[in-house]
Amino acid sequence: MEPIAPGPAPAPPPGRTVGEVGERGVLTELTRAADPPGGTGTPVSGITVVGTGDDAAVFRSPGHTAISTDTLVEGRHFRLDLSSPWQIGARAVVQATADVAAMGARITGVVVSIAVPASTAVEAVTGINRGIVDAAADLGAVLLGGDLVAADQIVITVTALGAMDGYRPVPIGGARPGDVLAVSGPLGGSAAGLAILLSGRRDLGDDFAELVAAFRIPGPDLGQGVIAAAAGAHAMTDVSDGLIEELITMADRSGVRVAVDTDAVPRPAALGAAAAALGSDATDWVLAGGEDHQLLAAFGRADQVPSGWTVIGDVRAQPPGAAGVLIDEVLIDGVLIDGAPAGAVRGWQSFDG
Amino acid sequence: MEPIAPGPAPAPPPGRTVGEVGERGVLTELTRAADPPGGTGTPVSGITVVGTGDDAAVFRSPGHTAISTDTLVEGRHFRLDLSSPWQIGARAVVQATADVAAMGARITGVVVSIAVPASTAVEAVTGINRGIVDAAADLGAVLLGGDLVAADQIVITVTALGAMDGYRPVPIGGARPGDVLAVSGPLGGSAAGLAILLSGRRDLGDDFAELVAAFRIPGPDLGQGVIAAAAGAHAMTDVSDGLIEELITMADRSGVRVAVDTDAVPRPAALGAAAAALGSDATDWVLAGGEDHQLLAAFGRADQVPSGWTVIGDVRAQPPGAAGVLIDEVLIDGVLIDGAPAGAVRGWQSFDG
Repeated sequence: MEPIAPGPAPAPPPGRTVGEVGERGVLTELTRAADPPGGTGTPVSGITVVGTGDDAAVFRSPGHTAISTDTLVEGRHFRLDLSSPWQIGARAVVQATADVAAMGARITGVVVSIAVPASTAVEAVTGINRGIVDAAADLGAVLLGGDLVAADQIVITVTALGAMDGYRPVPIGGARPGDVLAVSGPLGGSAAGLAILLSGRRDLGDDFAELVAAFRIPGPDLGQGVIAAAAGAHAMTDVSDGLIEELITMADRSGVRVAVDTDAVPRPAALGAAAAALGSDATDWVLAGGEDHQLLAAFGRADQVPSGWTVIGDVRAQPPGAAGVLIDEVLIDGVLIDGAPAGAVRGWQSFDG
Repeated sequence: MEPIAPGPAPAPPPGRTVGEVGERGVLTELTRAADPPGGTGTPVSGITVVGTGDDAAVFRSPGHTAISTDTLVEGRHFRLDLSSPWQIGARAVVQATADVAAMGARITGVVVSIAVPASTAVEAVTGINRGIVDAAADLGAVLLGGDLVAADQIVITVTALGAMDGYRPVPIGGARPGDVLAVSGPLGGSAAGLAILLSGRRDLGDDFAELVAAFRIPGPDLGQGVIAAAAGAHAMTDVSDGLIEELITMADRSGVRVAVDTDAVPRPAALGAAAAALGSDATDWVLAGGEDHQLLAAFGRADQVPSGWTVIGDVRAQPPGAAGVLIDEVLIDGVLIDGAPAGAVRGWQSFDG
C-alpha cells in the first residue's frame, strides 16, 4: 500500500481527471474518507485498528479470522452508464463481504485496491471510495487501507475480513442427507434489474425501481451469516453465481444430492411482471441469475432455520456416480459432474450486455 | 472468492486459453498449486489455516496482524515480453509483502486476485500462480485463497498478512532528530534492469544479468523487517517508489529533515558500468528508481543498525516551513512540500517503456 500524507490538501476542482491531479492528490482525497471513526487505536467493529495510512494497516482480531477477496471489472461486473460510482463501490463491498458472511463470520474490515485509467474523473474514484466506506460502515466494518494504480479499465478488488467469534467455519461442503435447504432472501432481482437496464426502456426502470436497485447494490442481510452459524448450519455459501451453480458446488463438495422446489424459492414481488414486460423467464433469473448474494444454507432440522429465511428444498443421499442437483425433481447435469456446463449454468464469468 | 472443486481433473492441453478452458478448469489448476502443505488444520508460518478453497479462508493469528494490498497491472508494472509469468507472480508477492515487512511484521499469508483476458494462455495464469505460491513459500507464508476474473489486461492484486509477534508497528512517520538512516540492501538495480530490457540490447542483458534479475524479481531480505523492529527502529518503509520519494514521505510524516549522502547509498556492483553502457545516470537509478523494495529505516543509535544494513544518512530537526529532504546537503523540494513534483520524483505511477 501507499503511505499517505495526512492533513489538509486543496480539494481538486471538479471535472479533473486522475491523471491531472496525480496519484498523491487522489490518495489524499481517499484517505480523508477512510479515516476510522475516532482515529487509530480505537476499537472498530470488534477489531482494534492500531495503524492505517502507513505501508500496512495493523489490527487485532481475537480468535479466528475469515478472509476473502473479490474483484469487479468495468464492462464485465459493472458499467458506469448503469450504476453510479458510489453504487459500484458499495456493490464491491457487498460481493466481497458476502463470502466472509457465508463462513458464519461477522464482517470486521476491508482493504481495497482500485485501478483506474488516468482519464477517469477524480469524482468517479472518490465516489467509488465513498461507496466502499459507506457500505463497510453499514456492515459494521472499517476500511483498513488500500492501493491506487493506473490501468486501462477500472478494476476494484476488495479483500474482506471477518471474525468467527468462536463459531466453527461453515463450509459449502457440509450438507448432510436429511438437512433442509434454506435461503436468507429473494433471488433473481439483480439479474432482472440488469436486464431492465440493458433493455434501455426507461419506463421499465421506473416501474421496477426495486429490481434495478437490487442489481446496483444487492441488499442481502449479511448479518444472517452469524445467525445461521449460531443456529448450527451444516453448510453455507452466498448465491453469487446463480442458485443452480451454488447447489451444484454444495452437492459435489458435500457428496449429497440437493433437491429444490422452484416455487418455494423466494423472489421479488415484481419479478413476474418484469419478466412479462421483457418477454423473459422469471424462473431463469431466480435459478441462474446470480449476484443477489443472499445466503444459501443447509440446516439439520427445519426448526433451526432462522427467522426470515425460506426453506427451498432438502438434502438427500447421492447415488454413486449420479448427478447431485434436482430442480423440481428433474436431475440437472452440472459442470462438476461431466465437465460441461449445463444450459442454465454460467461458465466463464462474463457480462454479455 | 470462488468455492473450488477439490480432487483431480484433467489438466488442460498446452496452448489453450483461459476462455477455452473456462473459469472452473483454471481454478482447479490454481487450487492444486495452492494447497497448504499438510492440508487444512496445519499450522503454517505460525498461523493456523482451518479452511481454504471455500467462500473464504479461515486462519488464526495470535496478537496483532499487519495487512496491505498491492496491485500490478500489465503494461504498467510488468510486461509478458520482459518477464516470465512465474517472475511476474513472484514479483507481485515481493511488492505486497514488503509493505507488511516494513511495519516490522513477519509475513504469514497472502490472498490473490488475478484478472486476465479470456485470450490468455492457461500456462500464463498457472505460471503467475506458481510464482505467487513459490515466492510466498520462500517467505514462510501461505497462499490462503484467491479470485479469478476476466478483464481486458492482466491485473494482479496481492493482499499480504503479517504477524507482529508482540513488536510495536514501525510507522514511516516515526523518525526523530538524531536518528541514523539505513537501508537493508542495494538500490537502483531494478530500474537499471528495466532500462536494459527496454534498450533491446541483448548483449547488455547478458552482461548485466544480475540487474535484469533485480527488475524481474527484486530480492530484498524481507525478514529484515522483524530484525529492524526488534532492534528498535523508530521509522521504516520499503523503497517502492524511489528513495527520494520515500524520504520525502518519511520527513513529512515525521516532521523532521532527513539528510542522505548519495555516495553512502549501496548500489549493485555493476550499476556504474550499466549506466555507462546505456548513457544513463546511475545515481538517478539509485535515488529515484524505485521497486527494489529494500527497507529504509531510522534507528536511534548507529549501534542499533542491524548487520548487513548500510547507514546512508541522518535525521535532523526541521526548520518550520522548510523542506524535509537533503541530498548531499542540497535541499530537495518534494511533492509533499509545495504540491508540485520535484524533477527526480515520480508522480502518477506509470510504466513509460
